[in-house]
This record gives sequence, structure tokens and C-alpha cells, in this order.
Amino acid sequence: MFYTDGKLQFPVRVEQPNPVFARALQQAIGGVEGEIRVALQYMFQAFGARGPAKYRDMLLNTATEELGHIEMLATAVALNLENAPLSLQEEVSADAVGGAVLNGMDMRHILSTGLAALPSDANGVPFDCSHVYASGNIAGDMYANVTAEATGRTLAVRLFNMTDDPGMREMLSFLIARDTMHQQQWLAVLEELGGEQAVLPIPNSFPQEKEQTDFSYAYLGHMIDGSIPEGRWSDGPAMDKRGMFTAQASEPLGDKPVLAPPRPQSGAQSEQIAKGSASPLVEKIGGMI
Amino acid sequence: MFYTDGKLQFPVRVEQPNPVFARALQQAIGGVEGEIRVALQYMFQAFGARGPAKYRDMLLNTATEELGHIEMLATAVALNLENAPLSLQEEVSADAVGGAVLNGMDMRHILSTGLAALPSDANGVPFDCSHVYASGNIAGDMYANVTAEATGRTLAVRLFNMTDDPGMREMLSFLIARDTMHQQQWLAVLEELGGEQAVLPIPNSFPQEKEQTDFSYAYLGHMIDGSIPEGRWSDGPAMDKRGMFTAQASEPLGDKPVLAPPRPQSGAQSEQIAKGSASPLVEKIGGMI
Amino acid sequence: MFYTDGKLQFPVRVEQPNPVFARALQQAIGGVEGEIRVALQYMFQAFGARGPAKYRDMLLNTATEELGHIEMLATAVALNLENAPLSLQEEVSADAVGGAVLNGMDMRHILSTGLAALPSDANGVPFDCSHVYASGNIAGDMYANVTAEATGRTLAVRLFNMTDDPGMREMLSFLIARDTMHQQQWLAVLEELGGEQAVLPIPNSFPQEKEQTDFSYAYLGHMIDGSIPEGRWSDGPAMDKRGMFTAQASEPLGDKPVLAPPRPQSGAQSEQIAKGSASPLVEKIGGMI
Amino acid sequence: MFYTDGKLQFPVRVEQPNPVFARALQQAIGGVEGEIRVALQYMFQAFGARGPAKYRDMLLNTATEELGHIEMLATAVALNLENAPLSLQEEVSADAVGGAVLNGMDMRHILSTGLAALPSDANGVPFDCSHVYASGNIAGDMYANVTAEATGRTLAVRLFNMTDDPGMREMLSFLIARDTMHQQQWLAVLEELGGEQAVLPIPNSFPQEKEQTDFSYAYLGHMIDGSIPEGRWSDGPAMDKRGMFTAQASEPLGDKPVLAPPRPQSGAQSEQIAKGSASPLVEKIGGMI
Amino acid sequence: MFYTDGKLQFPVRVEQPNPVFARALQQAIGGVEGEIRVALQYMFQAFGARGPAKYRDMLLNTATEELGHIEMLATAVALNLENAPLSLQEEVSADAVGGAVLNGMDMRHILSTGLAALPSDANGVPFDCSHVYASGNIAGDMYANVTAEATGRTLAVRLFNMTDDPGMREMLSFLIARDTMHQQQWLAVLEELGGEQAVLPIPNSFPQEKEQTDFSYAYLGHMIDGSIPEGRWSDGPAMDKRGMFTAQASEPLGDKPVLAPPRPQSGAQSEQIAKGSASPLVEKIGGMI
Amino acid sequence: MFYTDGKLQFPVRVEQPNPVFARALQQAIGGVEGEIRVALQYMFQAFGARGPAKYRDMLLNTATEELGHIEMLATAVALNLENAPLSLQEEVSADAVGGAVLNGMDMRHILSTGLAALPSDANGVPFDCSHVYASGNIAGDMYANVTAEATGRTLAVRLFNMTDDPGMREMLSFLIARDTMHQQQWLAVLEELGGEQAVLPIPNSFPQEKEQTDFSYAYLGHMIDGSIPEGRWSDGPAMDKRGMFTAQASEPLGDKPVLAPPRPQSGAQSEQIAKGSASPLVEKIGGMI
Repeated sequence: MFYTDGKLQFPVRVEQPNPVFARALQQAIGGVEGEIRVALQYMFQAFGARGPAKYRDMLLNTATEELGHIEMLATAVALNLENAPLSLQEEVSADAVGGAVLNGMDMRHILSTGLAALPSDANGVPFDCSHVYASGNIAGDMYANVTAEATGRTLAVRLFNMTDDPGMREMLSFLIARDTMHQQQWLAVLEELGGEQAVLPIPNSFPQEKEQTDFSYAYLGHMIDGSIPEGRWSDGPAMDKRGMFTAQASEPLGDKPVLAPPRPQSGAQSEQIAKGSASPLVEKIGGMI
Repeated sequence: MFYTDGKLQFPVRVEQPNPVFARALQQAIGGVEGEIRVALQYMFQAFGARGPAKYRDMLLNTATEELGHIEMLATAVALNLENAPLSLQEEVSADAVGGAVLNGMDMRHILSTGLAALPSDANGVPFDCSHVYASGNIAGDMYANVTAEATGRTLAVRLFNMTDDPGMREMLSFLIARDTMHQQQWLAVLEELGGEQAVLPIPNSFPQEKEQTDFSYAYLGHMIDGSIPEGRWSDGPAMDKRGMFTAQASEPLGDKPVLAPPRPQSGAQSEQIAKGSASPLVEKIGGMI
Repeated sequence: MFYTDGKLQFPVRVEQPNPVFARALQQAIGGVEGEIRVALQYMFQAFGARGPAKYRDMLLNTATEELGHIEMLATAVALNLENAPLSLQEEVSADAVGGAVLNGMDMRHILSTGLAALPSDANGVPFDCSHVYASGNIAGDMYANVTAEATGRTLAVRLFNMTDDPGMREMLSFLIARDTMHQQQWLAVLEELGGEQAVLPIPNSFPQEKEQTDFSYAYLGHMIDGSIPEGRWSDGPAMDKRGMFTAQASEPLGDKPVLAPPRPQSGAQSEQIAKGSASPLVEKIGGMI
Repeated sequence: MFYTDGKLQFPVRVEQPNPVFARALQQAIGGVEGEIRVALQYMFQAFGARGPAKYRDMLLNTATEELGHIEMLATAVALNLENAPLSLQEEVSADAVGGAVLNGMDMRHILSTGLAALPSDANGVPFDCSHVYASGNIAGDMYANVTAEATGRTLAVRLFNMTDDPGMREMLSFLIARDTMHQQQWLAVLEELGGEQAVLPIPNSFPQEKEQTDFSYAYLGHMIDGSIPEGRWSDGPAMDKRGMFTAQASEPLGDKPVLAPPRPQSGAQSEQIAKGSASPLVEKIGGMI
Repeated sequence: MFYTDGKLQFPVRVEQPNPVFARALQQAIGGVEGEIRVALQYMFQAFGARGPAKYRDMLLNTATEELGHIEMLATAVALNLENAPLSLQEEVSADAVGGAVLNGMDMRHILSTGLAALPSDANGVPFDCSHVYASGNIAGDMYANVTAEATGRTLAVRLFNMTDDPGMREMLSFLIARDTMHQQQWLAVLEELGGEQAVLPIPNSFPQEKEQTDFSYAYLGHMIDGSIPEGRWSDGPAMDKRGMFTAQASEPLGDKPVLAPPRPQSGAQSEQIAKGSASPLVEKIGGMI
Repeated sequence: MFYTDGKLQFPVRVEQPNPVFARALQQAIGGVEGEIRVALQYMFQAFGARGPAKYRDMLLNTATEELGHIEMLATAVALNLENAPLSLQEEVSADAVGGAVLNGMDMRHILSTGLAALPSDANGVPFDCSHVYASGNIAGDMYANVTAEATGRTLAVRLFNMTDDPGMREMLSFLIARDTMHQQQWLAVLEELGGEQAVLPIPNSFPQEKEQTDFSYAYLGHMIDGSIPEGRWSDGPAMDKRGMFTAQASEPLGDKPVLAPPRPQSGAQSEQIAKGSASPLVEKIGGMI
């Protein structure tokens, strides 16, 4: 269950409202690098947490913090829209170069919300919850969270560099610091779980002898001239210390695939049905179809 | 530029075609954990690679391998569909319990493709390229790639556990091995870049003194009773060795936000316009609106 | 800013886990009638609230309650999945009729989450934030909220009728009660704003004399035989008491539209360019193109 | 079955074509507040109408009118695009400030349609039919329709305020009038059904004694300081006259949720499986998994 | 402007309601091969038609017919749902094999619509208007329409083959006949425009000498062994009689691409910035960045 | 299996980087007319090819070429972004008219990719794989491919007309030539299959006598005045020479549809349940519900 105090985690000030920057800020609300995503991602990881209870608590606690970041950014968008042009005429009179502000705005900030934030990205594409990664595997989820905070901090840095409004820079410097911490936090969980050596390969509950181990530490080359891009990944001990990296050109181990011809009632063209290739499998199961 | 030989990287055999398993396999083609995603993700990271050229080559090479995994899985789907029921009647006669196969299938395998794979997930939701993460920051991208391979291998393990068809298990054991390697590969790049200490916080090109450093290593508690979920993240040296973890209850540093009342032409109700709260910002910029 | 206690607003018990019902419950989490929607909708209405501050507080408070409903339902999904089949074989041995459970499940409950909830609907379609209505007009938003709670309660009733698990029925009877209250709550705001007569037409800040008032209270008939479906809407005083309903057959007041022919560089076929119809407008602006 | 005469319901004139306004108009075609939505929504409500036949007729009739509104707006978009720049050079020569028009346009008006409308919103996001609400409950549907017309009229007013083209203002003044009527129309149906008292709670066919009636008229407070935002919703008789509003702080009635630990084949990490918390439910059903 | 008579273009009868077939029929309503798509596609092609007016009329006329096909299919879905199970218990008692019907249904037919059609496909994915092709080029649009009717008829045939309900087969045999005609219709327009020779290459208004004509009729081989799949496309006169088909192995005419290193404020890692490759272009424009 | 050489199929040069043109180019990468679409479409048609093996090879070969077109265009986007403004200030100093470049850019080129391409269209809408048409019917697929190449070439021509950068025009003239060839290629397959007369109606494996042949070659008029838009489609021999075109006004052959009233547990309003219309079907199956 959740509670609120209606206050902002950190002050949100805008000295020079800028509707174009309001559009840019949308990426941090409803973009794939944004705050709706992390709030829901940590929430669903918590709600589905199986195993030690401490991780559920920790995830839920940070999810709750992220809700407040949506609030901060939505407030920042609204404040940047305070003087947005509501008409093509108003804009022309306010701006000597004619129409530049409206051109760069998210028009839905006028048309759909009456000068407030949307749960969408900087192009107006609504956030879609397929981006909420909660796999049921805690190590995989921690890497997903590091990714979210890495792309989140990169975005916040780009927004910081884009503006020179002191209020906006102050707010962003706080969000950047929180992203620093959250990158640390998820990596700390991985260390607590034993670090790379212990957690890999993810999921580590699958007996590795069941995989085709000839290919478990091999960098396969697909360059047409047989060359192989070399680096740490092509030589030396693997990151999990359970194998040695090798490198080799990839060769097809299978043949060209052969599918059965279309069945008469399957909606194919007659020419396909008559002249189809015969699959060995189909001969075997032919009596059934 | 790309080339093909039309052969499969690894043999794809199905002993007992199972249209319900065909639906499950779709998740590995068009799901967020699937192969279209990694193929396009590594491809777009390569196409946009700025900085040392070796990473472009390495990414493009592995993107090319992943294209062949889509091919393998699409073939596996088609082979699992060889004996799928095309009519409600056909099914009933083939299956004593009546309709079970059709119920569990992706009906579009009959209706839309004529017994072949779709670029969609196990629920028939088409893959959408917003899942292609290519941030222009190589460290962030490597964590995104580890995530993709961790969720990918978890999915492949679940598919392996779901079936007992020897052909399918063999194919999946190959794909699982490749996911093992690819997890290693992206972590190897991070090590080559200097490891956690060097790459954090991502992006490491932003001067850390510009962030609100009081909050850079602090785990903030949002539990209503002031308790704080403790762990490696709340105490001891941070992962980047540049700070010490602390933990504290989160306090609002800002007030309740105040927005200007709606402007007369903004499509709000009259009651909002008349009785709106006054924002200090708006007084300042009032002459413009 | 937000807080949590990690507890459930109302107990969530499942006596007989049922993975098929877990899929049905997803509609109440990530469906358009579900809880992610209302939580975010009330939140964004609050974040963008302009006008009297009390509505921001009220909206934010109820948004916070709805977050806890997502938590309850996600827990209910996980509990219904406790005994879900992880393999096609496991299922057959557990279920005499073979495969029925897996057929009716959301396979991603196995493949993507490891037996936990998704932010998706009963068909696995992820929630997409375009459904978050926050228009900046408080009356319009209140009707949107009544709609959300009406469809939400209808869904909860259908789920209640679908199951006979005592624990699930108890949980749903709580959520149904809350939806009852929330329908009341939003209508209460409309009454506080003056009721139908005062709030209509929405937005009421637009001077009604600027609209084509001949058509403001007329039910227009589009039946080919000129008949008009009659009812309260075709006769008598309008709901806002500012007009009388009339009914009349709709007649086209405009002509067939005429567009300019394609311009030479616009990518049309030559035949279109040569033989295009001439628009009066284009003749006027012809010099510009 | 449907018919057409190819004429416009109301004249569509553009005096000064404005490609940026063409983009704004898209919101009224393919936005969530737009005409494709209402046309399809009323159509699907009609097609699925169960109960008195008069509502099917009335809904179908108005759906048919809305089709003509799509036609009017698509024509308006095309006419506003008559002089759109087809090249970066053409634009520079036509516009002293360089590129402003192209910047503010929907580029797909050039690239994808050759100067015609798209079934998308002002940001180019295509309309998606998840916004077609047809719940099978007539009262819920009527509120959905009021919402659609309220947001629709708000949008039309904002478009009216944005332009000063006399032709566009005339067309919009007609559409605004129709939205006025349609708000009335759906509320008239609700009155015919007995008004708020009779239709609430929606669905009114569920016996209210089966809900947890202690919570049916209670405004629950989630403010951390125990305060409760007060208003018409927290005191006095409820809107349906069947209860009295109360207000109280929300207390968790449930405990922290406890899920079973992950099962060995579920793709979790080994550490989760070994150290998982034990759910009482799982002990009960343990033999099955 | 549009009109209706509320009647069905062709009778819709269901002898044995089948909720699983209702789900299959959804593909013909909201699938990419379905009727919402063609109705809107022909409508938007008509609304944006530039050039000879007769094509606008013809397109609009057929769009209007397709609206009635949505109506027929939505009615067919509702009739197939008449006896759908509303509860897990009801189903078990009605069906000896337990749960088969509910497993194969679109659960939203119960949960979201109360036994009526959705504007979604057979997997519950809502129709999205990006599938409405209206390019402004009449020849390209005609091929898009042939495609729509070819996939539409293929789908209808598959549905016909799937059911043995006499009512449903009768309805589908009508829709199949209409798809036959509509394939003819769009090809007839192409013939009227001069046939393949005249309309190709689309758009035919672009002077073909401006393209790299060495590659205009060449089938390029990307097989790693240099072999080339041969057929009508690799030899003989081209379809437009303006060239001869040739075949050759594809060779890269460009080099490896070289991008500038990341700029300091672009959010990349420091290692990328320092060691980046130098692009010739960037040297040239270096002063600007 | 696939291979690469990391080189470009055709040189990609940009003389004057233009971030606004970078946005336009996105349509050719991730738009519905773009290269991701054709690459995946031909790939999935190949992977699912049943019937003569030569078509699988031919499709796979051309899919492989299209992958290289994504590479070319992604490179072109990155090169056009070389001098993009990273801050609102930087832009103002570089551009006398203030902000025009940033206004017209895809902001995610700065915020999400660090100056590189996205797999999205010119409005930032991500490509979604529902546009990958692979129907299992080779003739239908060929028409889908002609459509893809017709819209693709139209787009490329519009991009060519939009820019005057010599490098970009050169690259586009190559892509235009390839689209010319690919239109030819798919039509050549249709000729090889026997041409229009043989392949129609698609699918030609359905016995045409099972369709309602009275309507197979009739152009049906839905104009309210009974007029019929005439052309090649309304008179003369049909394209497949198996019928003669006729034209007639469309008459409803069915009645108004009648659905059963809602069932008590279906979540409808009581008023619907009590007063519902009675369907003949329901009387027949009444015992079951």
C-alpha cells in the first residue's frame, strides 16, 4: 500500500519557461529511458519477487522513490509550458522569427492536456508497458535495472547539457545523482549474490552440461573474409572463470531447411501445393494431415 | 553489406510436431527477449558506433549471427506446425479430448501465415522496435546487451524445460550455449573498458562534481515507518570505489507544486480559470501570456 | 513524493490456484479497464492540475490508493500461478484431459516472468499510456474517471462471476466496493462544480454563441429512409436547460470536396498530375507552388 | 449497411493554407479525442448492443454522422497542405526565416501521403482501436461517450483558438456545436435510464450486498500525515442516495504478501530457489509441483 | 457524408454458436487482413485523392461497402458468443472435457465487451491505423488494395475451411465473392491507367534517367558462394519493356562507414570520445561543433 | 545463416549535414515504406516458404540485400547529424533565426542515440512488425511486395526531391533504381506463376463455385442516389477472363440483426437484461445458458 505527502522530493524551478524544452523533458517521463518505466519495472519486480524477502522490500522501496521522480518531471514540464503560445497568431507576435516555438513543441501539450505533461516520450509516442522487465530471475533483472539507470542517466546528462536554465539544471543534477546511486545499487545486489563468477551464466540454475558447451565460450566470426574482430572476448579466461574464450569462423552445421508443401485447405496457391518440396518429417506424419 | 548461404547455423529437427509449442517458440522470435530484438539491437549499435572502430566490427559480426537465430527459430515454428488442425472438425477427429490443440495455438499460425512463423511473441503481439536499445554510450549499451542475453537465455531455458522433443532440446541447447557466450562477450567489453570502477557512473564523461553529490551514494528509504531495507547497497564502499554507501530516510526537499491557473483560451472549465492558484513564475512572465 | 509500507490494502488469498484465472485477472492490471490506467490517470490529472488546489490533492490521494490495487492484483496473479505447469509433460500428468491448463494460460506467465504478473491485459497486450486521459479540463476529466470506474467495476463483477474461489471473491468484493465509491466520488466533484447545467457544454469557457447554434441541440438523422431513432435526446429540454432538443434528417451542406491536382514533385503518377481536378484555392495560391 | 453521397456535411474552406495547422488538425482525426474513435466506438456499441433495440439504432445513426466528420477533417488537412514545401530549398525561398514551416509539419504529410491526411494524431502516432470502448453495459458506455465528446469538444475549441483562418473557424464552429449536442445526447440516455440514482453503481445488475459495503461510500485517505482532502465526496449523501459519504485514513488490512520460492525448472537463480520464503499456500499444494 | 439503413448486406446466421470460432472471426474484423483496414484504407485514399475525380468516387463507394462488412462480421462474432461460458464452473458443467471452450476464447469477449466483437485481431491485438495505406500515388495504392483483398480472401477461405456451420459458411462465401471482385476491381484500375508497362516504375512521374540505371533491372546475388537464384526475374525483358533483366553477384561499392567520434557533451563514454575515429566530413565541418 | 563484410553496398556521402533531413530519412528506415519492413518481410516469406524451393532462395537473397539498405540509411542519418545542436544555446549561436534546426529534428537523435539512427519513422514512431506480410500464399505475398516497393520508391523519390545534397541524391538514386528492379522482380514471379489470369482469384486453390458467384464480378453501388461510379471495373471482361463485370446498386439482403438480451451475470445494466430483444437463436440454445 502506498502513501503520499503531495510534496516534491527536490525543488522544481523554471526561470525561463521553454515549451521546446518541455518536449525534451517528456523523454524522461514516458521514454524508454524514463521514470514511468523504472517505477513500474521495480514495482513489478517487487510484486513478483520469489526467494529472499529482502529483495522485495528493497525493490518496492526504490520503486516508490521513482514515482516521485515522475512527479518532479511532470511538474517541470508544466512549468516550462506556462507561456506556451496557444495560437498561431499569439506566437508570431511574441517571437520575431515567427512560429519557431510552436514548431518545436509537442502540440499535444496544447491540444490534449492544456499545458501539462503527457505519459509519452519526446516524440509523443505513449509509454508502453512492454518495457517493464521483470523476468523472475533476480540477476537478469539487476542487469536490466543497471541498463535502465545507465540510459536514464545518459538521458538526464543530455537534458542537462541542452538547457542553461538554472532551475532545470539544479533539478537534473539531483536526478543524475540518484541515477548514479541506482546504478551502484543494482550492481551491489549482483555482488551480494556472488558477483559475475557466481551469477553467470544467467540463469545459473540450469545445468551447464546440458548446453552445447563447444559453443559456450566461442566468439563466432561471420565476416565473409573469415576475419574475426578480436578483443577481450576472443582470447583468455572467460568472465565466469569456467572456460577460456576462443574464436573461430562460423560454419553452418545445418542444411537448407525443408518444409512440407502447403496442405490443400491452407489457403496457398495451387502451384505451391502441387510442386511443393517434400519434408521427411511430413512423410512420417502424413497420415495425420 | 550482407550475404547468406541459406543454410541453418545448427540443425533444426522436430520429432513430434506440436502447434502449442510453436506458439511458445514465438516468444524467442518476436518477444522482448527474442532474436529479432538482439539482431536489430546489435545492428543499430554498430551502425551508430562512434569511437574505436573495433567495436563496430564486433557488434556487426554478432548482429549477423543473430539473424541466423531468427532463421532457426522460424524454421522450428514451421516444423512444429506441420500437423496443425486447419478446421474445428479435423481437430476433434484427431484429438480425443476435443479442441485442445486449437485452443492453445496461435490462431494466426493458421489464419495469417498458413502454418509458418510470425514476427510476434507468444501472445501474438508484434515485435516493436522501441526495444532496440542503442544509446550512443558503449557502456550503457553493453549492459543492455547483457540484459538481452540474460533474459534470452532464461527464456531458452524455460522453453527447454517445457518440451521433451529431442530435436527441439538439441536446438535449444545450442541457443543456450550461444547466450552463455554472448553474456560473457558483453561483460568482456566492459572489462576491456576498465571494469566497473572505470565505466561508472554511466556516462563517465559527465563531471561528477556537477551532480548533487550528497545523493550519489545514498540509499533513500521510502518506508512509511522509517525503516530501511538493508544490504550491500546501504553500507560499505560503493562499487566504483569513489564513495561510501549510506542509507537515510527520504525527506521532501520541495514543497507542493504550484501551477498557474489555466489561461482563458486553453480549454479549461471557467471554474478553474477563475479560482486558480497563482504561481510565482506566472506573475513574472504574466505579461507574455 | 510517495511512501509505502509493503502491506496489502486488503488481504489476498487464493484457495485453489488457477492459472487460467490468472490470465483473466491480467485484464484488471493492464487492461484498458484496469488499475495501472486509473493510477496513472489520476496521477497525471493531479500533476497537471491548474485551478483550485483541492482537486490536485484529492486526485493525488486517490491515485495513491490505486497503486495499492495494482499490488493486490499482481499478488493475486502470482498466487494463482503457484501450481502452473512448467512443461507440456508435467501438465499432462497433472490433468487427465491433457493440456487444458497450458492452453488457457498466458504463456508469458511461464516464459517471461517465471510465474508472476505482467503489466498487460488478458490477451498479453501491454498497457499503453495513451489511455491516460488528463485533458486539463476538470469536468471532462471527471467524466473520464467515471468511465474508468464504470468499466473497472463491470470488469471486476465479471471476474467475480467467473470464479468461485472464496479468496478471490473476497478480494474482488473489496475492489468492487472501491469502484462503487470512486464512481460516486467523481460525480460528486461534478455536482460540486454546479452539476450538469453548470458544467455543460464542456469546456464551458468557450462562448457558446461562437458555435453554429442551429446544430447544438439537434439530433441529426442519417437513416437512409429519413426515419429518426427517437428518445429523450430528440425532444424536450436539453440537459443543460439552455436549449430544446429537436430532430431532423441530416442534409449535406457542403459539396463534393475538390483538391488540387498533385504537384509534379510530389511522387504521384503522371496520369494524376496531368488530369487532376482544379481547386479554386489552388488557383489563388498557385504562384507559391 | 451504409451509403454515401460523397458530399460534405458542412462546407470546408481554407483561406490561407497552413501546413502546421494541418498537423494540429490531425489530432481531431486520429487522436484519442478524434473522430475515428467516436465513429468506431458508436459503431461497435451498436453492433454489440443487447437489450432494447432503440439504442442500437440511435448509436448506429450517430456513428454514421461521425464518419462524415472524419471526411470533413481529412479534407481540411489536405486543403491546408496545398502549398506545403516539398523540398528544403523550396521552403527557404518561400519563407524569410528559413525552414520554419517544414520544421512544424508532420513530414509524413509529404513523405507518406503526398499532401493528404493520415489516420494519426498530431504527433504522427497512428490511431489504435484499443480506444474503442464498447463494454456491453449501456450506462458505462454512455459515460464513455460523454467523455469522448467532452475531450472532443475541448480539442475543437483549442483548434478554434489556435487558428484565425475564417474557413477553418467556421468548420470548427460546426463541429463544436455537434459535440455540444452529442454530450447532451448521451446524458439524455442516462436520464432515460433513470438518472444517476438508478444507473449507479455501474453495473447495477450486481447485487450490492455482495460487495464489501463498509468501503462503498468511504473516501480513503493516503496522505502520510493522516489528513484527508475534503469536498462533496467526503461528507453528505452519496450521489445514488443509497449511502452516506464518510472519510477515513486508509489502513492496510492485509500483510506483506508471501509468494512461494521459485521452482527448480522456472529459470530463476539458484540463490532464489534455495533461500526462498515459504508460502502457506504452497505447502498446501506442494504435492502438485 | 454517410447514411445507413441498419440492415445487413447479407444475412448472418449461426446454427451452432462457437466462441472459439468467434475468436477466429476477429482476425477478419481487426486483423491486418480485415475489414476495418480496407474500409479506412479506401476511405483515406478517397479523402486524399488528387487527380481525376472518378477515382475518388469509386474508392469512397467501395469504402462504404466495406463498412457493412465490419457490421456483418461483428454480428457473426456476437452470435457465436451467445452461449459462451461466463464462469469457470458453468463451463465445466457444460463440457465434459473441462475448460476447453474458455481456453480457446478471447477472454475479453467476456471481460471487456459482454459477449460482443472487439476491433482487434484473433490474438486480441487492437487494429492500428498504421496499416491504412494511402500514398497519394494511385498506382501504388491500387497494388496495396490488391494486397489487402488477396490477404483478405485468403483469410476468409481459411475461416471457411475452419468451420462447418452452414450459416457461417454462407456468410463467408459471400465475403469471398466480394474479395474476388475487389481484387479484380483494383487491377482494372491499373489496366485503365495503362497496365504494367505504363504505370511502372511507380511513381512514373520521376524521370528514370535520374536513377542509377545500371541497377534498375539487375537481380543482385547475395549468396556467399556467388550463385544466383534464377527465374523470370534474372533474364529476358523486364515487365515494363524498358529494360532487360540481368543477374550479377553484388559487390560492395562503398567502404566501411566512418563516423566522427562522439562530441564531449553527447553523453558518450570518455573512452569513445578520446579514441574515436576521424571522419573526413567532420574535419570539414569541425568549426561548427 | 548470414555473413557480412562491414562495407556499404553503395557509397554514402553527405556534403552538408542537415539534422532535419536526418529526420526525414528515418521514414525510409523505420517507416511502413522503409527498409526494416522489406528486409523482415522477405525474410519471413522465405523462412515460411512452402512449395517450390526456388522461391525461398530468391526471397532470402533479396532480404539479404535489403539488410544492407538499412545499413546505408542508418549511416546517412548519422552523417546528417554530425553538426546537430546539442543545446538550445549552441543552436542559437549557430543559426541566426534561432532554434529552427532543433525544432525540426527528431529530438531523440540527441536524447536517445547520441546522434545516430533509430529504428523509427520520421515522427519517431517505432517500426512494428505487424507490417511484415507473409501470408503463406505466394501470389498474395508478391502483390504485398510490389506494394512495399511502390511505396518505398515513392518515398525515396520524395526524399530525393526534398534535398539538394549531391551525396544524398546519389545514394537515393541508387535506392530508387533498386526499388525499380524489385517492383519488376515481384511482378516477374507473378508472370512466372501464369499471370493475372492464372493466379486470380487469390488464393486460387479455393474452388470458385463455393463462393456466391452472383457477386464475384459485380461492382456494387452504395451511392445514396443510386448512381454508380463507372470505369473499367463496371463493364467488360474481368481481369481473370472468367467473368464479365457488371454494376448494380447494393441492396441489403439481410435484416436488422437481433442479438439475445444480456445474460444476468454478464455485467450489463438491469434495464438491458429485462427489456432485451429476443433472438431466435437464443430460444433454440436457451437451455444451455
